[in-house]
Amino acid sequence: MLKSIKDSPLYPMAHPESIAICGASNSVNAMGTVLLMSLQLLGFEGSIYPVHPREKTVRGLTAYRSVLDLPEVPDLAILVVPTQVGVQTLDECGRKGIKHAIVVTAGFREVGGRGIALENELTAVAKTYGISFIGPNCIGLANPYHKLNTTFMEYEGPPGFIGMASQSGSFVTQMFNYISKFGLGFSTAFSVGNEAQIDIVDCMEYLGVCPHTKVIALYVEGIRRGRRFVETARSIVPRKPIVALYVGGSEGGKRAGFSHTGAMAGPDRLYDGIFRQSGVVRVHSVTELYDACWVLGSLPKPGGNRLVIQTHSGGPGAVAADSCGRAGLDLPPLSEETKEKLAPYIPHTASIQNPVDLTFTKNPLDYFGTILKALLEENNADMLLVYLLMVPRIAEQTMLELGVPEDRIPEQLRKLHDGMAGSVADLIQSHGKPIVGYTFRSLDEGIIKHFIERGIPVFPGHERAARALAAMARYVRLREKLAAGESDASAKGKAA
Amino acid sequence: MLKSIKDSPLYPMAHPESIAICGASNSVNAMGTVLLMSLQLLGFEGSIYPVHPREKTVRGLTAYRSVLDLPEVPDLAILVVPTQVGVQTLDECGRKGIKHAIVVTAGFREVGGRGIALENELTAVAKTYGISFIGPNCIGLANPYHKLNTTFMEYEGPPGFIGMASQSGSFVTQMFNYISKFGLGFSTAFSVGNEAQIDIVDCMEYLGVCPHTKVIALYVEGIRRGRRFVETARSIVPRKPIVALYVGGSEGGKRAGFSHTGAMAGPDRLYDGIFRQSGVVRVHSVTELYDACWVLGSLPKPGGNRLVIQTHSGGPGAVAADSCGRAGLDLPPLSEETKEKLAPYIPHTASIQNPVDLTFTKNPLDYFGTILKALLEENNADMLLVYLLMVPRIAEQTMLELGVPEDRIPEQLRKLHDGMAGSVADLIQSHGKPIVGYTFRSLDEGIIKHFIERGIPVFPGHERAARALAAMARYVRLREKLAAGESDASAKGKAA
Repeated sequence: MLKSIKDSPLYPMAHPESIAICGASNSVNAMGTVLLMSLQLLGFEGSIYPVHPREKTVRGLTAYRSVLDLPEVPDLAILVVPTQVGVQTLDECGRKGIKHAIVVTAGFREVGGRGIALENELTAVAKTYGISFIGPNCIGLANPYHKLNTTFMEYEGPPGFIGMASQSGSFVTQMFNYISKFGLGFSTAFSVGNEAQIDIVDCMEYLGVCPHTKVIALYVEGIRRGRRFVETARSIVPRKPIVALYVGGSEGGKRAGFSHTGAMAGPDRLYDGIFRQSGVVRVHSVTELYDACWVLGSLPKPGGNRLVIQTHSGGPGAVAADSCGRAGLDLPPLSEETKEKLAPYIPHTASIQNPVDLTFTKNPLDYFGTILKALLEENNADMLLVYLLMVPRIAEQTMLELGVPEDRIPEQLRKLHDGMAGSVADLIQSHGKPIVGYTFRSLDEGIIKHFIERGIPVFPGHERAARALAAMARYVRLREKLAAGESDASAKGKAA
Repeated sequence: MLKSIKDSPLYPMAHPESIAICGASNSVNAMGTVLLMSLQLLGFEGSIYPVHPREKTVRGLTAYRSVLDLPEVPDLAILVVPTQVGVQTLDECGRKGIKHAIVVTAGFREVGGRGIALENELTAVAKTYGISFIGPNCIGLANPYHKLNTTFMEYEGPPGFIGMASQSGSFVTQMFNYISKFGLGFSTAFSVGNEAQIDIVDCMEYLGVCPHTKVIALYVEGIRRGRRFVETARSIVPRKPIVALYVGGSEGGKRAGFSHTGAMAGPDRLYDGIFRQSGVVRVHSVTELYDACWVLGSLPKPGGNRLVIQTHSGGPGAVAADSCGRAGLDLPPLSEETKEKLAPYIPHTASIQNPVDLTFTKNPLDYFGTILKALLEENNADMLLVYLLMVPRIAEQTMLELGVPEDRIPEQLRKLHDGMAGSVADLIQSHGKPIVGYTFRSLDEGIIKHFIERGIPVFPGHERAARALAAMARYVRLREKLAAGESDASAKGKAA
């Protein structure tokens, strides 16, 4: 395990003070140019040196014919040049004394034949000069905390807590917008491309000690260093959850992955075994990957897999119970003590089973107050799932009847919702138990929006909520197993 | 099977010219009032008679102390009265000569004990007077084609092609907003409540002959008339797909369902068998239910389960291939003929496997034009899944460079996108093969929005797309099996 993030060769790549971009020009059709635009859009504060054989200036910056002409040795070179000059350009970087590079250029091992030989040449050049590099055939990385984005797409949303290492560049760039819709962001996201030198294990190791990273997401088409993967993951998982999406196990996924990055996939069960040994939570879709990261990065971990569902609508409660059961969660009955606590607050039509179906609430404030608190205090519950149904018109109507002037209603509603969401966030912290919401409404309205702003995940639909909760319970179980395995090993050590 | 929709007792309930609402008042906290508001909001064009013991007028309408005082015999009475006067109110309806009722009032069999006896009294009264009724403990129905909405929530979106019969009222009301976001709407949606008389089978039978209904959605907590369910479904499925969400099979779902409507659930495998025999496609979440309805109601049916995936991003292609494989779809290789057709249009970095990963398109118009058409013509493909990535800024930038004045860009983009979506819709019709999109972007932007407006489903994420396509393939297989079974039976008949 790394002692400090600064011991990783990835640290200078994720925190450069100066960057050369080989291949940036004044044509917005050139990938190097688009990459430069992303970098400028996020407000990168260091020096940027466009390198191009013919341009004098590029997007307001002095351009250089070769890295050899640069006025200083940049911390990082990004290569977005044609395949045939890739090796030569890296060689020039080496001669200049550049020690870190991102090779975006494609046309290497992934195309087979001559590409394989070319990739070997690239690696040999790097070795000669002691260059650490990511790629080729990658899109680089994004570290929004350093205002660094070396990809083709604009970084959207805030810096966040998800550390990503991906064998597909799309699952870095095309996720900027996707995760920002849930109020999430990346701490640092790596696209590793063909992994000619730095691989997904190096990135995982880096993210393991990255202080901004609370949870690690992996997109895997094939793991080359199996043993090292397991060891590294096992050293991280006790402190930080790792979630992996692996697609190579199915016929379709295997074929697609191979033609994509040339990764050799293995049978599904083999990878299941690797992930289980490593303490890594495996998921089966991009949606599940980020849903799991959302709950694992923003909520306290549950003590076990016993769940209580709170709803005021029978059908949504029943489908959630069904999905949670199928996902392997346990729905225990409530204790007598909790039932007594709830009694004063719930109508006679309610069902105090699990799901707790209130049918309606005598006082809407109780739903996120007294009732939720009583359920959090339930000893049989490790976590809570709460149904959210907000109909803006009804809330507005109620305010009107309470005598709130019409023009002040939006502000009053905002305050009310934020207050409720805030007190739920406080309850989560004070009780150390996770609460997750689910809804069929949009995530950008009423109290749902405020829940999300306060870091309480709300899922569109019961199945996504069920799987995210199950991922959280699975992490806890895997972590326990690792701990038990370790103490077994140390006990054996002592006995020997 | 019904010969005509008009032969069903549900027809007058879904097409009344006059309605009495027992329980509507001037308090917006009263459920009867909220129901009246929904009815007025959708612009119901017939007569509405509020019935309340004390009110003189209700929301601008003359109110009556009892249905006995009404100036005419209304086609439909809706009972939203306290439990203790439910039976008496239905009795008065009978004495007035009313033949159709929706009993929203709750507190019957679902609460057990005295409630069971009360429900029996209700049924007896209905029998005495020959009243057909839905409920009790339901929320009634919505038929937007008749501007009829007898529920507590405002109908949102257009009238549509999904016929719904639900044992939970929430899955009628709380879906108005949900499905409208996909451009979908209900033809007619029924909440059956406790099914004291009219049940989910009656509703299914009605929807089977409803001309606006292209696909039937069922939410099932327990089926009472098993044999009749199977017979009815088998008579509908050859013409119209039926999709069912059943939650009673798991422990959590069973308990929740029982306390909800008192339905007795059966083991999962039993219901799996009932659905299979009936030709009904079973799903496991609300999301899946409406996703399946979306594709089944808006696209031509595939000839089999062979799928081709088209993408320009490797990772998204690989995860889609993985999900589709897991969902049971087949991803055959392309024929030599198709590969030859594609050759001129794709870059050398592309992979002409399945997924067809273009990496990028030489001409963006080819993606939804020549390339898509060549894949539709592929004999090995029964259906297509296409990855959609729209980045509004990039499209705008391209327009600017083509010399389009900045203020005309939004309109030009709209035209461009609508044109592309329109030609894809035409390709679907002319080739009789379904095309479905998937994306990680919002559904309300760029070309994605236009796809949806043109009736081409686009799913958020690969897994939802995979399951929807699999549901479509499953319907086709079930329908074939029914047809084979029938011809077997008739062959046996002939032999005998």
